Amino acid sequence: MVYVSRKEHFNAAHKLYNPAWSKEKNAEVFGPCANDNWHGHNFELIVTVKGLPDPDTGFVVDLKKLSVLIRREIVDRVDHKNLNLDVDFMRDKLASTENLVIEFWKILSPQLSSITKYGKLHSIKLYETPRNYVEYFGE
Amino acid sequence: MVYVSRKEHFNAAHKLYNPAWSKEKNAEVFGPCANDNWHGHNFELIVTVKGLPDPDTGFVVDLKKLSVLIRREIVDRVDHKNLNLDVDFMRDKLASTENLVIEFWKILSPQLSSITKYGKLHSIKLYETPRNYVEYFGE
Amino acid sequence: MVYVSRKEHFNAAHKLYNPAWSKEKNAEVFGPCANDNWHGHNFELIVTVKGLPDPDTGFVVDLKKLSVLIRREIVDRVDHKNLNLDVDFMRDKLASTENLVIEFWKILSPQLSSITKYGKLHSIKLYETPRNYVEYFGE
Amino acid sequence: MVYVSRKEHFNAAHKLYNPAWSKEKNAEVFGPCANDNWHGHNFELIVTVKGLPDPDTGFVVDLKKLSVLIRREIVDRVDHKNLNLDVDFMRDKLASTENLVIEFWKILSPQLSSITKYGKLHSIKLYETPRNYVEYFGE
Amino acid sequence: MVYVSRKEHFNAAHKLYNPAWSKEKNAEVFGPCANDNWHGHNFELIVTVKGLPDPDTGFVVDLKKLSVLIRREIVDRVDHKNLNLDVDFMRDKLASTENLVIEFWKILSPQLSSITKYGKLHSIKLYETPRNYVEYFGE
Amino acid sequence: MVYVSRKEHFNAAHKLYNPAWSKEKNAEVFGPCANDNWHGHNFELIVTVKGLPDPDTGFVVDLKKLSVLIRREIVDRVDHKNLNLDVDFMRDKLASTENLVIEFWKILSPQLSSITKYGKLHSIKLYETPRNYVEYFGE
Repeated sequence: MVYVSRKEHFNAAHKLYNPAWSKEKNAEVFGPCANDNWHGHNFELIVTVKGLPDPDTGFVVDLKKLSVLIRREIVDRVDHKNLNLDVDFMRDKLASTENLVIEFWKILSPQLSSITKYGKLHSIKLYETPRNYVEYFGE
Repeated sequence: MVYVSRKEHFNAAHKLYNPAWSKEKNAEVFGPCANDNWHGHNFELIVTVKGLPDPDTGFVVDLKKLSVLIRREIVDRVDHKNLNLDVDFMRDKLASTENLVIEFWKILSPQLSSITKYGKLHSIKLYETPRNYVEYFGE
Repeated sequence: MVYVSRKEHFNAAHKLYNPAWSKEKNAEVFGPCANDNWHGHNFELIVTVKGLPDPDTGFVVDLKKLSVLIRREIVDRVDHKNLNLDVDFMRDKLASTENLVIEFWKILSPQLSSITKYGKLHSIKLYETPRNYVEYFGE
Repeated sequence: MVYVSRKEHFNAAHKLYNPAWSKEKNAEVFGPCANDNWHGHNFELIVTVKGLPDPDTGFVVDLKKLSVLIRREIVDRVDHKNLNLDVDFMRDKLASTENLVIEFWKILSPQLSSITKYGKLHSIKLYETPRNYVEYFGE
Repeated sequence: MVYVSRKEHFNAAHKLYNPAWSKEKNAEVFGPCANDNWHGHNFELIVTVKGLPDPDTGFVVDLKKLSVLIRREIVDRVDHKNLNLDVDFMRDKLASTENLVIEFWKILSPQLSSITKYGKLHSIKLYETPRNYVEYFGE
Repeated sequence: MVYVSRKEHFNAAHKLYNPAWSKEKNAEVFGPCANDNWHGHNFELIVTVKGLPDPDTGFVVDLKKLSVLIRREIVDRVDHKNLNLDVDFMRDKLASTENLVIEFWKILSPQLSSITKYGKLHSIKLYETPRNYVEYFGE
């Protein structure tokens, strides 16, 4: 079993805001992240696939195909977007990095079989800033 | 003459949009950067001061004082903000990184004498993404 | 279960020295790391918390609160310090990065419940240099 | 149990080429990576050893000894080399990063006992580019 | 005058070899860099353009257009290539990073006017490894 | 004229302390950097040489020779040392990064002619932390 990773990036605006709360409560809990007029980040996204190398290619997964898949399914839907307003799969969800990686997993996991016989999705890691990041393993 | 640099960071939302143009023209020129609902970045800001080291301290400028100055005058006014809507010194200006460093220079340059006898502002460098950055030397 | 990480940094002096050994034996085993007059490092510290996201905030743990906790409990006690002489919890211990992460774990682990309902300490990673680092999972 | 890591680097040429296939099939599967005249990379190699710290040294493994071992057994055999032509342990294998880490594991794993009483090889991670990397845990 | 930079990357094989010298002399001067079977690198290329921001866009140069230009004129001709064998503009030249940046300048400098009214090529910086790099200002 | 750079690193302990001042004044001016028991850093040192490429080698300077020179003349004298106590050329000087680069320049500048016909020392850059650094051009 080898673990193979591909890093992609995107940038987006968002705010942290719970619509069930008052503006004051949101400001208290989320601080400047609740700014009405949004703020934003450069996100670094790392997708890891695990499996046995295909004896014909030496690859668990062709990283060029993985890159194309991530761009088509994730990056094109979030890059230069507002995560709260523009992204269908984040509707009615808090735009935290935790929730983002869970949604990214749901999208990518069933599609990996289209590009690799041997690999399965292992983890999704998302850097919101160079000092803050999350990782999700599907459960 | 020694050149001394301090790196700070902030994150913000913005869009590139020329109000004198139609929506179509903005989309054509700025592409996804013109997204109505904004996008955003983690910015890395590097301020460089040049001068002779003070014989009493060995410092051109005390980098802790420089850090405090940058945070008070720049970071606190742009961090977790919308550069088009929330930042007074960017009103009526295109929110490009080029224009940001010029405004940062105007703010910081006259204030350096409050923290250093020997140093003068030399340059301001701003990374919008790890692959795109600008630098300004005051003229 | 999502894994959430926060990176902090500090710098400190230390030496590697086993008081049960002669000076020669220390020099033989630890080489330049045993230098009597100390040496030092910029340390990068990454604390990872695991748990379910709180449905009200989307957070496993508020990273601002985690940052404050790490700074108060760890960084303020080691930053700009001598790890052998100035740090109470390293008294009578070899100042290796291995021993540091074990002590950091003992300090942080019981305190996480004060800032998160859903998260538990998962790991502590410590870079002594960009090429040397250790990680500890509490057992 | 503490996990201790050491990062080394090397650069090398290679191509991805399955000799059982036609030139056209290789070009189709491997794209520019199949270029007859080779291409190359700066590789970053991270070796992680796990174990209990030795009570006499505070070390799971002396990272200077680990560095010497990695350089002698791996780096000296691949650095400034052609991975397809010059490297004995890659003969008749596809020069993918997946296959490299598996071979590195076979070489390093039995030799760790020569430098540490307490540590065992935990993982080998290999960056082919800053955006593509693999990791192997020995099974 | 603002300086605007765009970073691109490519990887390639090369060797350092002066055909006027014996094999022994090449080995003596270039060491492992003269390896007959090539070695390779991930190169990071930074192109800096200087000029006044266009009042209509806030841009010295549209970095997307600069990226497209660099990719078409440089990256597509060197990426996944052998710098000694596959690259027309390096024919009969020593494949040192110094000579690469000089040739890159000759190619890019006359073409900048096709993408910017206000900017001129200022410098080309090329990282061969994270520790070795060169920069050229056109004279 | 091409500018060629080599990055080396070392780590060391130091404190900022003006012996002409009282302990209180030192604490007031230098804050935690004046800690009696020292603190320390990983330093990254970048030496830049400028000149015309040698037509026989394509090199302004052989970076392996430059690396050997920097290690012998600088790194071996400061690595794993106390900059205030162990380093002859820093005696009676404040151990600031500003003063370090000036001393490094005095040491390296006259020695470059021993390894390059074409190159002259252009600058010395020293990172004390990833956020604080200085650069010196010899005047």
